[in-house]
Parts: sequence; structure tokens; C-alpha cells
Amino acid sequence: MRTLMGPGPSEIHPRVIAAMGQPVIGYLDPVFVTMMDELKELLRYAFMTENPLTFPASGPGSVGMEMCFVNLVEPGDKVIVCRNGVFGGRMLENVERTGGVPVVLEAPWGEPIDPQRLADCLKAHPDTRIVAFVHAETSTGCESDAAALIRIAHEYGALTIVDAVTSLGGSPVKVDAWGADAIYAASQKCLSCTPGLSPVSFNTRAIEKVRARKTRVQSWFMDLNLVLEYWAASARTYHHTAPGNSLYALHEALLLLREEGLEAAWARHRRHHLALKAGLEAMGLTLLVKEGARLPQMNAVRVPEGVDEKEVRRRLLTEFNLEIGAGLGPLAGKIWRFGIMGYSCKPENVMLCLSALGSVLSDMAYPVEVGQAESAAHHAYASLHTEAAKAAGGRGR
Amino acid sequence: MRTLMGPGPSEIHPRVIAAMGQPVIGYLDPVFVTMMDELKELLRYAFMTENPLTFPASGPGSVGMEMCFVNLVEPGDKVIVCRNGVFGGRMLENVERTGGVPVVLEAPWGEPIDPQRLADCLKAHPDTRIVAFVHAETSTGCESDAAALIRIAHEYGALTIVDAVTSLGGSPVKVDAWGADAIYAASQKCLSCTPGLSPVSFNTRAIEKVRARKTRVQSWFMDLNLVLEYWAASARTYHHTAPGNSLYALHEALLLLREEGLEAAWARHRRHHLALKAGLEAMGLTLLVKEGARLPQMNAVRVPEGVDEKEVRRRLLTEFNLEIGAGLGPLAGKIWRFGIMGYSCKPENVMLCLSALGSVLSDMAYPVEVGQAESAAHHAYASLHTEAAKAAGGRGR
Repeated sequence: MRTLMGPGPSEIHPRVIAAMGQPVIGYLDPVFVTMMDELKELLRYAFMTENPLTFPASGPGSVGMEMCFVNLVEPGDKVIVCRNGVFGGRMLENVERTGGVPVVLEAPWGEPIDPQRLADCLKAHPDTRIVAFVHAETSTGCESDAAALIRIAHEYGALTIVDAVTSLGGSPVKVDAWGADAIYAASQKCLSCTPGLSPVSFNTRAIEKVRARKTRVQSWFMDLNLVLEYWAASARTYHHTAPGNSLYALHEALLLLREEGLEAAWARHRRHHLALKAGLEAMGLTLLVKEGARLPQMNAVRVPEGVDEKEVRRRLLTEFNLEIGAGLGPLAGKIWRFGIMGYSCKPENVMLCLSALGSVLSDMAYPVEVGQAESAAHHAYASLHTEAAKAAGGRGR
Repeated sequence: MRTLMGPGPSEIHPRVIAAMGQPVIGYLDPVFVTMMDELKELLRYAFMTENPLTFPASGPGSVGMEMCFVNLVEPGDKVIVCRNGVFGGRMLENVERTGGVPVVLEAPWGEPIDPQRLADCLKAHPDTRIVAFVHAETSTGCESDAAALIRIAHEYGALTIVDAVTSLGGSPVKVDAWGADAIYAASQKCLSCTPGLSPVSFNTRAIEKVRARKTRVQSWFMDLNLVLEYWAASARTYHHTAPGNSLYALHEALLLLREEGLEAAWARHRRHHLALKAGLEAMGLTLLVKEGARLPQMNAVRVPEGVDEKEVRRRLLTEFNLEIGAGLGPLAGKIWRFGIMGYSCKPENVMLCLSALGSVLSDMAYPVEVGQAESAAHHAYASLHTEAAKAAGGRGR
């Protein structure tokens, strides 16, 4: 049994596992149809949207991404792709393969996309049809200001495609308040669900662009026109065999999220992030992303000089059954990534992680005293608790 | 709890459900990598192939289909699509969307593709690059002669794409013996597994065609060049988050298939098909597909005149918790489809189905005596048992 503190999948809630094991039923069965309607409603809660076209695509996050691009981008469409990590790069691949004309707005890995630079880019490319960006870069743990980027894109008449794979359920994703036109996420990060589903949501502007296409969507499987017929409330027609067990799992995961409440879930991710951060800093480690753009659920930490980062990961995995993530691309070998997402986001994981990392590092002659990180995390928890009590006006816990 | 005797999903074996509930681990974890290697080996057993590039695509059968087409078909490639049901039509959609030049070889729904007509078609279109056909048409229960069709395609220098969604595990699928170049199946039919995975296999000729492409594969998610890097035995790189729980499920489902043995599984599907057929015929019902092209696992039955077929399905579902399938396309309202696939293929299902159908039909003033179908099925089972005993030389069961 592994403790999962990598970039995902995160741990699955036991109630989700139990739900997944329910006997499968036909995808046109009235019972299944009711479950799907509830699922769509629960997804609208998670995405904070009223968009009728909100549903789980039958594939991993990459399918949700590709669904957005193949439907919204027509050959010849100019698309600004903001790239500050792996997933911006994947967006670019998608634009190229759909025949779009990409304009790449680069930012250093670990830094957010600067809204002013997007405005300048749009000024230089006034014929831009779409702006695509990653809200929460899994490869760096960096958050960009989605609300600002979308506002600017709209000022210049462009639609937006937003990657919320790592943010949904862990930090605010406000589809309607932001005006995000097309957005995709994934089941296996902050939703504590089995991997293999990609929640997506499209607003009216996005649907209009798809409907106004002069060319056919290049993918049969991802063509929203066909998917719409299947997920539409009225006439349920056959499109593909729905991944029933995974959908039961997502349904249960979203019920859990609604029971906890979105704001409480965000606060939980923030609380454990602060404790983890306190512990890491007590060991002399530093975070890659600067304050203000840090995602609580994904913590990129610089590997101290002289430490064999791969050996640290190997020992955490083999000795402590603990998975953490490696750096990707230009950050390979330079960072570790500590995910505290969904059901993985709990005090026992934070404490195990600090304790195991301290133990391995001290073994490897890195100057750290075993226990000092845990103590720092403990104090962080305690002071957060005091603050919360004060904020509640002394009305106890 | 439903008894599933429709076109799929079929029932999931309890051991598969249990395997699916195992805690998820990272997709780069050595334990996971070992499981994936075993899974590929088990799939090679199921497909009867040595193809190294044999793996489960992370999506339903439609993803396996699209993966074959987007990789093998380049814009301008002439593709003969054999169409005798819904899935031939979907293949055509795929050819059109990949920029291929389709030539449609039509056959009536419920009849197999005539090899001689394929030869004539290839003679008329000697520049054909690919022949695509459905081995087992789920929409009609009709089997085409895959070995013959592939042999002819190869005689004319064309590669083949084969749909084995409904056949794999239920009737012979001999990838290497046939020489099938690209083939796809699905997890939720005769493999008794959760829906959402699509086993695929590509031989050297297919891979060479992909490698020789002058244009990029239009789908990022389905690009075999990228998928190869992930599934290749040596350097495991990140492509997408693998649907871990579904993969555990498939691993267990394939272990079950290997324990039973391919030939025993085919024989089981044949045995229960014969019993079901005996019962249906005893009620005066007739099968759509003629002897010799009938798939044992998918039985299309003509709706008798004057019977409200939708009401029959509704009553079977609501009164007996039994799902059967409706007709599609030109066969809508004209047939029912009785699937006996994988774990759904067992005597209790056959008996329940005949008993429930007899009861509902007799209620609806169709001239059938309750019990006569069950009796016919019982006799069929008994005579099959006697035959088997004789064949075994009287050495008992």
C-alpha cells in the first residue's frame, strides 16, 4: 500500500472504491441515466457553473484537453498558447495537430503567466480566436491568475481554453465568475477518484463556435456534436459504452466534495500546504514557486546541491512506501514535487512525508536533524488552529 | 442488480471487481510497471499474437478504433470499408475524418462480408492502402470470415484494420494466424471486465506504415509514436495518467481467461448459444443471421409480428431486472439482441432469459406456453453433454 504524494494519481477515498465496485448496468438503463444526471449536476457544483454542457469525458485529462482543442480550433484559427510548463507544451501540440496557427507566449517554468504580457500579445495578434492556458501547472505547482487572463482574452474577442486538471477541488475554479469558455480537469487529483475520467465544461460561446464550424471535428470520439446527443437530457442515444464503474466512482467522489463543501476543501488543501511548507523550510529546503502563485496541492521543492534526488525518491518508495514526484523537462533532476491532493491531503501524509524525507536526507549526509521538520509542521498546525479559533470568535473548534 | 444480456457491458466477474478495488499506485511505480508487462503478455495470449505492440488503450472501444484509423490512414489513402452494420458505418466516419478516401463495400445488415466481393472491389481499386472490416458486428450478431478477408487484402497489397470488439474472448480471434495488421477490442464484452479499456494490437507492417507517415498523426492522445514511448519495455516515460483501477481489473479478467483457456471459453459461448437458440426456436422465434455466420455471443432475434418490442424490453427490465438489447439503424424495432458474453454467458442467464421472455410474451397474447423454451434449452444442454461425453470416449465428464 503506497502513500501517494506525487503529481497524481492521488489516493482514492474508501467510499469511492466501494462505489466503483457496484455491479455494472447498461448505459441506457433508466437507473444509469438518473445517476448520470446527478453526476452532471455535481460537476456543475464543483466547477461553479450553470453550463448545461458539463460532463465527464470518457478518458484521462489528455482526452479532456484534446476534446477542447479539436472542437474549438478550426484549421487556420490563431491560438495563443501560454506555456510555463509541460501542459502548456501539450496544448501547443494540440493546436498544431488541429491545424490551428499557434502563437506561443512563453514564461519561465515555475512563474505564472503575466496578464500584461498576454494583453501585449493579443494587441500584436488582434486576429487571435482562442487563448489557451494552464490554470494550475502540475509540472511546477504554479498557479496563473485565471480570472485576469480570461478577462483580457475576452477584451480582445478571443475565447479561452483552461486546464484545471490539478486545481479542480483543491483551489478555486470559478467557471462562471471567470467566464471560462472551455475547461477540462481530471478525476485522479483533488477529487480523490480513480484515474481515467476528465470532467469538462463548455459555455454558450464555446458551443456556438463549435456549431459554426465550417469543417468537421477531426475526432469521431471527441466530437461534441455527437457527445451532446448522448449526454443531452432528452433523447439518450448510443455513442460509446460509458465506463460505468469509473462513473459511479466519480459520482461518489463528487458527493464527498459536496458534503465537505468547496470552500472547506480549498481550506484543507491550504492548511496542509502551510504545514508541509513549514516542515520543508525547517529542513532548509526552498519552494520553487514564489508566494502568491503557489498551488497548495502541488509543492515543487528545489533539490539541495549534492543530493542524489533519484536515490531519495527510490528510498522513499522502497523504505517508506511513499511516492513523490520528480521534475520534468528543464526541471528534471532539479526539483521534487510533493502533491497533497484530495484524499492524499491529510495530516498523516504530511507528517509521514516530512519524517521520511528527514530520515533519508540525514542518512545521505544532508545536514538535517530528524524531527525538526515534524516539529515545525506541528507548530504550523497549532498556530493555524489558534487563528481559526480566533476567527470563529472563540466559539471553540 | 441487473442480469446483463444486452450488447454490452456484460457482467463483471467478482474477482475482477475485487481486483479493481485495489489501492491505486503511481503509473511509474515499479510494481505498476510489472503489472503492465504482465497485462501485455496476457493480451498477447488473448489475441493469439506475438506482436510486441499489444496493449490496452485508455478508453472505450471507440478509442481503439480511432487509434487504428488516425495512425494507419494518411490523408489521401484509399480505404475500403466493409459495412454490414453500425460499426462499419463508424469506421467510415473515421476514414472521412482522417482525410482518407473511402470506398464502401456494402452488405445487408445481418449478412457477412463476401470475400469474393472484396476481391472484386480491390480489383476495381488497385490503389487501396487499407481494408477495414468488423469481424463480429455487435449490431447484428454476424461474423465475417476474417482469415479470408485479410488474405485477399494482402494479395492486393493492402493492410487490414479489424474490429474484434465483440469477438475477443468469445470466439476465435487469431491475430497472427490471420495476419491482421491492426486490431482493436473492448474490455466490457467477452472479457467480463469493466468498460473503458480497448485492447489493441499492431504488427510490424502496421508500425512501418505509421513510421513512414509524411504527416503527423492528427490526435495527440492516440498517436502511436507517443504511446509507444510509454508502453515500450525499456524507458517508461510519462504520456498520460494510466487508468490504474481499470487496468488491475483487465489484468484479473485476462488471468481468468487464461485459467479457463481460450478454447474452453469459445466452447462455453457456443454451448450456451445452442441452448439459448433451442429455447428461442421452441417459442417460434427465428434468428436474424443464418447458420455459419452466427456469433454465439450475440444473438439477434426477429421480433414476431404484432408484438410491441419496446414494451417487452421494458417489462424484462422492470419485472425481471433483465437487460436485453434493441435493434439499431434499419433493424430498430425489428430485432432484439441477446448477448451472452463473458461472465454473462452461463446457464442461469440463459434459463432466466427464456423463462422471463416466455412469461412476458405469453402475457402479451403471443402464442407461447410458459416452460416450453426452458424445456428445449434443457434438452439442448443434455444432448451437448452426451456428445461431449462421447467425444471424451466415455471417460466421464
